[in-house]
Amino acid sequence: MARCLFSFVGGVVGRWQVTHMETVIGTPLEQIIRVDILEEDTNPSQEGAAWVLRGVTSYERYVNKDEKQSLTAIQPVLDQPQATCAALIPIKKSAIWWGLPQDERRAIFEERSHHIQIGLQYLPAVARRLHHCHELGEPFDFLTWFEYAPEDAEAFEQLTRKLRESEEWQYVDREIDIRLIRG
Amino acid sequence: MARCLFSFVGGVVGRWQVTHMETVIGTPLEQIIRVDILEEDTNPSQEGAAWVLRGVTSYERYVNKDEKQSLTAIQPVLDQPQATCAALIPIKKSAIWWGLPQDERRAIFEERSHHIQIGLQYLPAVARRLHHCHELGEPFDFLTWFEYAPEDAEAFEQLTRKLRESEEWQYVDREIDIRLIRG
Repeated sequence: MARCLFSFVGGVVGRWQVTHMETVIGTPLEQIIRVDILEEDTNPSQEGAAWVLRGVTSYERYVNKDEKQSLTAIQPVLDQPQATCAALIPIKKSAIWWGLPQDERRAIFEERSHHIQIGLQYLPAVARRLHHCHELGEPFDFLTWFEYAPEDAEAFEQLTRKLRESEEWQYVDREIDIRLIRG
Repeated sequence: MARCLFSFVGGVVGRWQVTHMETVIGTPLEQIIRVDILEEDTNPSQEGAAWVLRGVTSYERYVNKDEKQSLTAIQPVLDQPQATCAALIPIKKSAIWWGLPQDERRAIFEERSHHIQIGLQYLPAVARRLHHCHELGEPFDFLTWFEYAPEDAEAFEQLTRKLRESEEWQYVDREIDIRLIRG
C-alpha cells in the first residue's frame, strides 16, 4: 500500500461521534466527543483539538504471499453506506517487542497469536485501515481504523477480545479503544 | 534499535568533506562539498543547505535471530578515530518491491541476494547505521551511513559492488553514492 498520511483529530468537531472511549492499558488519552479524519498533516492548535494522532499507510510487515492473497480476495473497502460504526484503536508496543528479530516477531504475531487468521474470520464484515506511526515519533506505534455495520458490532467485540487474549498483546504497552458512529 | 531522527545536511559546512559524489541510478542530488549530521529535525533554508535528508533508526525488518546474534557479536560502533572515511548512500526502492509480501522480500533480500551474509564479511572493518525514511515522506527509503579506515577503502568498494550485482538491487530505483572524509 502506498504511503498516505492521515491525521485523526480528536475534539468537538468531525464526521464521527464518539459513543465510548476506554483505556485498555497505559496512559489515557484526553476524552473527546468527535473525531475528524484528515488526509494530511495538521496542527492541533489550528484545529482547536484535544489531540491529533498521525499515521501513514505503508507496506506489510508480516503478511506472507498466501495470506496476502486471502486478504486481498475478501477484505472490504472503507466508506460503505451500511458501515456506520467505527473504532479507532491506537496501540503502542513495548521496547522488548521492537528489539526482537523479525522471525521472532512474526512467530508471535501469526504462528502463536494467529493475528491474520483471526482477522480473516471477520472479513468481509469489518473493513480496516492500518496506519504506522513508529517512525514518526508519535505517542503510538499503530492506529487502526475499523468500520462495520451495527449488526456486526458483536462480531467486532469478539475480534478485539480474541486479539487481546493473544500472546502478541503481552507486548502492548498502551492501548485506547474509541468507538464511534457516523454523523 | 530505538527511534532516533538524524538529518543529513548537504551544503558547504559540516564535519564531513565530500571526495566523490555519483548518481548510481535515477535522479541526481544537487552536488555539495560538505555534509553535516544533526541528531534532530532541521530546515534546509535555515541551514543554507542544498538539501536535507532525514531518516530514523528503527527496528530490524529482515534480520532473524541467528543473524542478529552474528551481527551483534561483530559490528563496530561509529566514530572510531581510525575510521576517517565515510559513505552516505541514499536509496529508493520501487513500488513493486514495496508491494511484495514480507516473505518474498525476505527471500530476495537474504536467501537470494545474501545481503546480511555479504555485510558480515566486511565486519568489523565497516561500521554502519541504517536510517529509515519510507514512512517520513522523504525522497528516499533508506539512508545508510558507513565509516571505515582508509586501508579498508578497497574492501568497501567490493561490498558495494557485490550488493549492486544482487537481485535485490533490481528493485532499487534511485541511488546516490557520496564518499567523504572527516575534517
